[in-house]
Amino acid sequence: MANFGGHAIPGSFFLLFGFWLTVKYILFHNWRKSHPKVRHILPPIFKRLNYAEGGLQVFASFVGIMVEQFVVDGPHAHLYNKESKSWVKLMNWQHSSMYLFFGISGIAMLLRTSSKLVPARIDRAALSLALFVEGFLFYFHVHARPPLDAHIHSLLLFPVFAGSVSLMLEVFVRDNILLELFGACLFILQGSWFYQIGFVLYPLSGPEWDLNEHGNIMFVTMCFCWHLAVALFLVAGTSFIVGFTLTRLSDRRGDIEIGMRNTLSKTNSEKALLEESEEE
Amino acid sequence: MANFGGHAIPGSFFLLFGFWLTVKYILFHNWRKSHPKVRHILPPIFKRLNYAEGGLQVFASFVGIMVEQFVVDGPHAHLYNKESKSWVKLMNWQHSSMYLFFGISGIAMLLRTSSKLVPARIDRAALSLALFVEGFLFYFHVHARPPLDAHIHSLLLFPVFAGSVSLMLEVFVRDNILLELFGACLFILQGSWFYQIGFVLYPLSGPEWDLNEHGNIMFVTMCFCWHLAVALFLVAGTSFIVGFTLTRLSDRRGDIEIGMRNTLSKTNSEKALLEESEEE
Amino acid sequence: MANFGGHAIPGSFFLLFGFWLTVKYILFHNWRKSHPKVRHILPPIFKRLNYAEGGLQVFASFVGIMVEQFVVDGPHAHLYNKESKSWVKLMNWQHSSMYLFFGISGIAMLLRTSSKLVPARIDRAALSLALFVEGFLFYFHVHARPPLDAHIHSLLLFPVFAGSVSLMLEVFVRDNILLELFGACLFILQGSWFYQIGFVLYPLSGPEWDLNEHGNIMFVTMCFCWHLAVALFLVAGTSFIVGFTLTRLSDRRGDIEIGMRNTLSKTNSEKALLEESEEE
Amino acid sequence: MANFGGHAIPGSFFLLFGFWLTVKYILFHNWRKSHPKVRHILPPIFKRLNYAEGGLQVFASFVGIMVEQFVVDGPHAHLYNKESKSWVKLMNWQHSSMYLFFGISGIAMLLRTSSKLVPARIDRAALSLALFVEGFLFYFHVHARPPLDAHIHSLLLFPVFAGSVSLMLEVFVRDNILLELFGACLFILQGSWFYQIGFVLYPLSGPEWDLNEHGNIMFVTMCFCWHLAVALFLVAGTSFIVGFTLTRLSDRRGDIEIGMRNTLSKTNSEKALLEESEEE
Repeated sequence: MANFGGHAIPGSFFLLFGFWLTVKYILFHNWRKSHPKVRHILPPIFKRLNYAEGGLQVFASFVGIMVEQFVVDGPHAHLYNKESKSWVKLMNWQHSSMYLFFGISGIAMLLRTSSKLVPARIDRAALSLALFVEGFLFYFHVHARPPLDAHIHSLLLFPVFAGSVSLMLEVFVRDNILLELFGACLFILQGSWFYQIGFVLYPLSGPEWDLNEHGNIMFVTMCFCWHLAVALFLVAGTSFIVGFTLTRLSDRRGDIEIGMRNTLSKTNSEKALLEESEEE
Repeated sequence: MANFGGHAIPGSFFLLFGFWLTVKYILFHNWRKSHPKVRHILPPIFKRLNYAEGGLQVFASFVGIMVEQFVVDGPHAHLYNKESKSWVKLMNWQHSSMYLFFGISGIAMLLRTSSKLVPARIDRAALSLALFVEGFLFYFHVHARPPLDAHIHSLLLFPVFAGSVSLMLEVFVRDNILLELFGACLFILQGSWFYQIGFVLYPLSGPEWDLNEHGNIMFVTMCFCWHLAVALFLVAGTSFIVGFTLTRLSDRRGDIEIGMRNTLSKTNSEKALLEESEEE
Repeated sequence: MANFGGHAIPGSFFLLFGFWLTVKYILFHNWRKSHPKVRHILPPIFKRLNYAEGGLQVFASFVGIMVEQFVVDGPHAHLYNKESKSWVKLMNWQHSSMYLFFGISGIAMLLRTSSKLVPARIDRAALSLALFVEGFLFYFHVHARPPLDAHIHSLLLFPVFAGSVSLMLEVFVRDNILLELFGACLFILQGSWFYQIGFVLYPLSGPEWDLNEHGNIMFVTMCFCWHLAVALFLVAGTSFIVGFTLTRLSDRRGDIEIGMRNTLSKTNSEKALLEESEEE
Repeated sequence: MANFGGHAIPGSFFLLFGFWLTVKYILFHNWRKSHPKVRHILPPIFKRLNYAEGGLQVFASFVGIMVEQFVVDGPHAHLYNKESKSWVKLMNWQHSSMYLFFGISGIAMLLRTSSKLVPARIDRAALSLALFVEGFLFYFHVHARPPLDAHIHSLLLFPVFAGSVSLMLEVFVRDNILLELFGACLFILQGSWFYQIGFVLYPLSGPEWDLNEHGNIMFVTMCFCWHLAVALFLVAGTSFIVGFTLTRLSDRRGDIEIGMRNTLSKTNSEKALLEESEEE
């Protein structure tokens, strides 16, 4: 939808998703570190988190498709117009197709959480594919636009394809917290960049941007790097807050399970020390 | 062969090959999971499947080459025409070259199934190479065509090169069912896309497509994603049916071997549980 | 800053950084080889080296940003000029953004050296990202220049992006001395190439270069390879000198710790022999 | 050197090198398989082979540089002509630079064979770099030529860069015979393609090729695939002959060492069987 809202809605979705992934990955990472022995049997709470994530993805995609189809100026599920011999609102159809693949990745998440026969990591693979399709469709619908418009949209391809690659890597490289947080960071970057696109193409206030001036293109390119820096900062901050809260909680509560965990985490903190110094 | 049949024949071949790979990979995966101890000594039936696959590849490639050479308007094995100082039917020669490499991959499959001295995985490497050559030749023979024709053919390069890469990865990453099924999915996508090309360039009914209209190009791009979604669905469905049938059969039959397998698969299903939750 | 100094300063920085990394990696490698058992607990001296490296990175980046902003003809922290409706000194702003990310990588180094909760290897990831951003901004600000100028700047992208990739690999491949030294070599290459750019665009003596002559472009391309050869030689030489000095020192000193190390290194040199012949 | 010989000489060099690598890799692979226990301590004969290889590389590169410099129409070590204000024979200088890096890779081979302190696999890394530099220089000196000339030279980049990547992979993936033979195959392909370039640009007999006709470009593209098929066949054939001879010899000789090896190879052939069937 060619207006500010049409960029703010997916932007917010990706921002929230990025934060959500950061929190989730830190929770899982903390569990793996504090339960080295039984690390692979997760408490049901984590399973429920995955159900919620998958379910929300499916729901959001469904809503997205419906909106794209049945907004006032939408195609209303008509694909080809025989009279005018032309396709109906291909832009909305393309957006629907993008949502479709995020829905598929939600289904994949639900399936593999519910059944142990579904190959593990299929959720990452499906999400990676969804990002690839998003980038693939964007790539082919940016051309024949004014320079700044084309450039600002093509910059969006960086977080999209980088996210696709990083999620694909997660299929092969397991439990690498750096990789997981980088993926989350790319979602936040994508989200904030959607907002930036909205602000540039449909400014809420102030003058229109000159879509052909080279200076604007140079600024936007640099601005993209600032968004990246902010995204890194947000992921780092969130991780710190979540990690800090977790240690606080585990210190507060004093039951046996936790007592056990502490001993575990002590032995583990020594291991962490080794790992850490291993890096020198 | 520049007609609908010329695209439907390779299309059907790739579709069938994709389904075949899906079934085969699920069978092998199931065997590996239900026989964790002896997973690497396969029952002769699997060896025979590989012989059949290799033999059929060789046979199909040979037929393909013969057809390309000796159709009525074919080069009949003439490469250069001295009178007209020009090459004879290079298109047919290029198709023959593509088939040649699929034949080579068939031979590689036969060799490595028959002799233990042939390095393992050579069949995957050869198939990956065959796909690369196919994409390589396509890449150089799409240019100087009307936009839609060039675009729809260049979209074919995605499943071709992606398949080549994914098969190359299988040489290094072993027994990764996700990767194997993704490769199969790409063969199905390639097959269905061959049909799509046929329908667009040589419509069986209805009006000709305008090969220069931008709307058609946008639609075809999106249509490619729908083909991908369908291919994913077909692979998932086939895997489910095969897996479901296998569990049924193993429950039905009650001989010792199976009894043993059940106990194995039970202990194994627990391991599967771990693996599965490991993903959280 | 468009003058010789503006290229010589970052050049010197990268040259020194490359040499520093070479020395550091050889020291760590030597420690790992001579203390196979306790290889992962490093003596505090190494920790201090990392603190120094991180601190210097942060300091240098801060100075760089300040200089770019407050030089006589700098933007003085003004981004947009309302009167002239134009951006102020975007070039300086872009350079500041590049320094910013090297500063972030310095902070990452400090954090992960000080706390064992920060994921290991985050310093490599951050440095890789800093190089990517540098290349990303360079890539978009070379166009619309005379051929030789554009070409000599785009050649800079090779060491920048190759360095980014090689550092990214270090996140996944651990303790691979070849990879580490290659990364260092690319920093040296980048540094010396900055000097080359300065010499070509702002010759200290002699005639100006013809920025449009094809011969100059061909020569510069070849010259880049010579820089690579020299960088390889410098890294090899430095490694040899450091390694040689280390063995000398360890032979000289005769205290127990060293005696112990010698026995260790003897058993280890046999292992090294195996590793070495393993390569045949 | 722009004549048939100038392409035939490097062509022959790469052809021989490819065959040599095939034989060497099969010998090493056979040794590793027949001595699983002591696989990493190679008999001195293999060390000598490496010395020979490295020495020959250095010698050939030196001769190559000398020839490029001091042929009748060479630059005779003059780089810049002050009178005509132009570079002297840059083409010869570029070829010299290519040879230089193959010389460096030869030195790397000699160093790491002689000293156990030189990091292993450095020979592969250096050879990979030499191929990269070759491709890098070729890439920049093909443009501004007639279409067929540019195309046939750019096809050369495939074996060059693919070889560079495959050798780079060998630094990380050890003892993968498929990868090693693929690298050898690419050297043979490069060699035979050099001959093809010579035949096309400087035909020994018959008419000149029309460098602008599209048909010729299409034929050359397909011809490249045929060269690949032949290279695969040559590597496979050589491997078979060498392997066959080795088994014959080991059967013939009856001393203890061999008796021991046979038992080893028997137990090992079973392992091979496992590995082999593991592939199903």
